[in-house]
Amino acid sequence: MNLLLLEDADFIAADRVILRDRRLVHMQDVHRAAVGDNLRVGRIGGLMGNAHLLRLEAAEAELQVSFDLPPPAKLPLTLLLALPRPKMLRRVLQTVAAMGVPKVVLVNSYRVEKSFWQTPFLEPEAIREQLILGLEQARDTVLPEFIIEKRFKPFVEDRLPAMTEGTLGLIGHPGNYPACPRGLDEPVTLAIGPEGGWIPYEVELLTKAGLQPVQLGARILRVETAVTALLARLF
Amino acid sequence: MNLLLLEDADFIAADRVILRDRRLVHMQDVHRAAVGDNLRVGRIGGLMGNAHLLRLEAAEAELQVSFDLPPPAKLPLTLLLALPRPKMLRRVLQTVAAMGVPKVVLVNSYRVEKSFWQTPFLEPEAIREQLILGLEQARDTVLPEFIIEKRFKPFVEDRLPAMTEGTLGLIGHPGNYPACPRGLDEPVTLAIGPEGGWIPYEVELLTKAGLQPVQLGARILRVETAVTALLARLF
Repeated sequence: MNLLLLEDADFIAADRVILRDRRLVHMQDVHRAAVGDNLRVGRIGGLMGNAHLLRLEAAEAELQVSFDLPPPAKLPLTLLLALPRPKMLRRVLQTVAAMGVPKVVLVNSYRVEKSFWQTPFLEPEAIREQLILGLEQARDTVLPEFIIEKRFKPFVEDRLPAMTEGTLGLIGHPGNYPACPRGLDEPVTLAIGPEGGWIPYEVELLTKAGLQPVQLGARILRVETAVTALLARLF
Repeated sequence: MNLLLLEDADFIAADRVILRDRRLVHMQDVHRAAVGDNLRVGRIGGLMGNAHLLRLEAAEAELQVSFDLPPPAKLPLTLLLALPRPKMLRRVLQTVAAMGVPKVVLVNSYRVEKSFWQTPFLEPEAIREQLILGLEQARDTVLPEFIIEKRFKPFVEDRLPAMTEGTLGLIGHPGNYPACPRGLDEPVTLAIGPEGGWIPYEVELLTKAGLQPVQLGARILRVETAVTALLARLF
């Protein structure tokens, strides 16, 4: 946790917060904070700044806070991601939040196991928890927008073309395709498939919606590694 | 597992192998392989090719194998990595093997907790196991060279300058430094610090050994994410 993220409910005054949950435990056990210490804080959806630790007890801490710094810029990106397996999903959520993806669409794909859609990690509170961990890691305050599309075809045919408009549409896909471009400034819509990749029919529908396959080389990467590698190369 | 990696001990003839361990279980449970199926195989340190499943029983499988394809090229890189926490270490080992790093030096750093050096994941067999998982994921056969340097100063002062010679030496380090370069062809020596980063004294010693700090932006990434992001951007 490189940034202590504050929720509206933590505030007891405009410049005063009380913490009682895992953030208190983290302050005590990892930061080994003491009264008088200063900590980096951010307000979810708002500015970052400084907290002065006024009071630290076993069950709660009180901090005086001030905010003056905008969070870092997001990437100009909409990320379309085939639902990963539950364990991978949690790490991917942290990674996309940490890397500054502002909008994520989780979609179904032929190679996504049906059972993956039953995971409790897809509950809104569970998704939010992992995104917050990513923001705390990277020092950002703004939660990515998160959309779940359980039906691939209607999403890609009916809603994706409008999302893709005005952006460079790319599909991360192994094969005999152009190399993934580097160091872009323009907005991008990027689709990343499941383990085993999109099936040809899905690539065809994505292409009709305005996305073109690009590749990263012969090596097959885990989803989490592929997400990071593609984003680091694109921007 | 996108490639079934074969050890010398698996061979009962030049074109015949017997499998009995986790690879057999994987073939049965994940690939749901049947007699007559063809599978991608590689020989550790050698070529990749095809296996034809001749016999599949509960306790062993027999395959006829042929090899014709070289493994993918490695990156022109020596990666100097501060020892991550044990759980992260395992994933990082898989990641560096999957991404094609040919040489890794695990070093100590001021911010590496001493207890991390006690982990059983640093045993040669445990390291090899994680590297193999990365090779199987990416479809590569060549294990990275792996060096452990528990003393930072003598390593950086006495041995690192010779390693760095003839390469572009870089330190992934947040701060007011030049942006990490992109799309290089030349050989690189890259140093990535622990959580919390290298301390100034370490940066100074690394700089004397021929490495220069470069940064990836304001966001603080987990070690595993930083490794992937830096490699994807550099090459």
